[in-house]
Amino acid sequence: MRNLKLTIAYDGTEFHGWQLQPGLRTVQETLESALTPLCGGTRPNCNASGRTDAGVHALGQVVNFLTGSKLPPETFVRALNATLPPDLRVHDAVEVPQAFHATLDARSKRYRYVVEDSPVADPFRRRTAWHVIHTLDAERMQRAAQALLGRHDFRSFETNWPNRASSVRTIFAATVERVGPTVQVEVEADGFLYNMVRTIAGSLVLIGSGKRPESWLATVIAAQARTEAGPTAPPQGLFLLRVNYDARPPQPEPQPSPRPSP
Amino acid sequence: MRNLKLTIAYDGTEFHGWQLQPGLRTVQETLESALTPLCGGTRPNCNASGRTDAGVHALGQVVNFLTGSKLPPETFVRALNATLPPDLRVHDAVEVPQAFHATLDARSKRYRYVVEDSPVADPFRRRTAWHVIHTLDAERMQRAAQALLGRHDFRSFETNWPNRASSVRTIFAATVERVGPTVQVEVEADGFLYNMVRTIAGSLVLIGSGKRPESWLATVIAAQARTEAGPTAPPQGLFLLRVNYDARPPQPEPQPSPRPSP
Repeated sequence: MRNLKLTIAYDGTEFHGWQLQPGLRTVQETLESALTPLCGGTRPNCNASGRTDAGVHALGQVVNFLTGSKLPPETFVRALNATLPPDLRVHDAVEVPQAFHATLDARSKRYRYVVEDSPVADPFRRRTAWHVIHTLDAERMQRAAQALLGRHDFRSFETNWPNRASSVRTIFAATVERVGPTVQVEVEADGFLYNMVRTIAGSLVLIGSGKRPESWLATVIAAQARTEAGPTAPPQGLFLLRVNYDARPPQPEPQPSPRPSP
Repeated sequence: MRNLKLTIAYDGTEFHGWQLQPGLRTVQETLESALTPLCGGTRPNCNASGRTDAGVHALGQVVNFLTGSKLPPETFVRALNATLPPDLRVHDAVEVPQAFHATLDARSKRYRYVVEDSPVADPFRRRTAWHVIHTLDAERMQRAAQALLGRHDFRSFETNWPNRASSVRTIFAATVERVGPTVQVEVEADGFLYNMVRTIAGSLVLIGSGKRPESWLATVIAAQARTEAGPTAPPQGLFLLRVNYDARPPQPEPQPSPRPSP
């Protein structure tokens, strides 16, 4: 058996998220169905770096699967792009060691959340941005976001806590930048809680529109209660940008004083 | 009666073009239905600067209609954006003289055609660009496009000639520019024949990929035969950018030697 790693991109609008669900169009279902004829008629089981929810997009999702197929990786790219629907594309395929697992080996992931703050929503952004009416102060949001850096218990930003054994994660980078009529939030971390980026985005928008003080995020983190954070921003603004599998994750910068986990 | 002029934008993907067609979702139908309650229950008749085909987009389409309504124009903008579907937005409303007619008074229109020339198509551009596999030489296309400037008989670029009394039009500007993974063709003219911009784009792509010489467009114009031009590029790359109603249309630049109309 060979282990193949794919880098894929998708417009999540018309998918019910990554994960297989009976009777629903999901990315995993669509990808595995297209892989089956290339894998000698045997449906492979694809592991993704993480599940994305319905309506969430990916520019660099990473997937691996085991197959007995002897087709060269480039042939997988070409054949998949010829048969997949146009909202799902394969950028790269490469053979990796048997032990590689796209979910378990991910050291960090980077997400982008796009907010459009214009008086009239752009009809071409309605599938890829959250439209808000208030003008946002991106520089204020950028300063505020620095409170997220480092190792913290992020349960204030988790829907339905506890989902997992621990809600402690390390954020390596958090940036907010104005790009034309949009404000783009990017967060890189060693892992994410359920709806964490969307709740960070919803909270930063409250700061950017002046409804919360610039120092507010530290208070929210310390409260360890979901009710203290802002709303969960809608899915269509969220993009999984890339997944890092290097042995050494990026270091936080600037390094805040470490906060002990509870 | 008052005469109101609207500037609207739409993602044409899910519309069957501008014009009313029984049982189909068109921009005109959607807009007039949303206007009806604001016009005291009377459905207004909207004139657009020009029809756009199924799948073609608009950033600055201009529309006018007569109404007895006394609502201020700003109220039309707000109420329409609250009730219209998100793929159709109203940017502006203004009262204009009774005589103004969005179709008849247009002095020039500007269109953009977007081609994506990357090995793997971007799933986020599939509704707004024509994906081609060959890398395009945008500078070569820009030089070639200059042959279009000025007053010519453009019947070589018209589907189903003759659609109109005359196929002579004046092109005021024709530019080709690389923007990231796309090549953007913009054409401004006093009027357009059926599929003219899409045929110009299809022809320029043949030049950009090296399949036709840089000087080819002059030959195509002179031939006065649709069979001499390139293919009609698909609708999803085409955007109506803006409509100019000023008394003096923009002057061609650089001014080519005038070609007598046949």
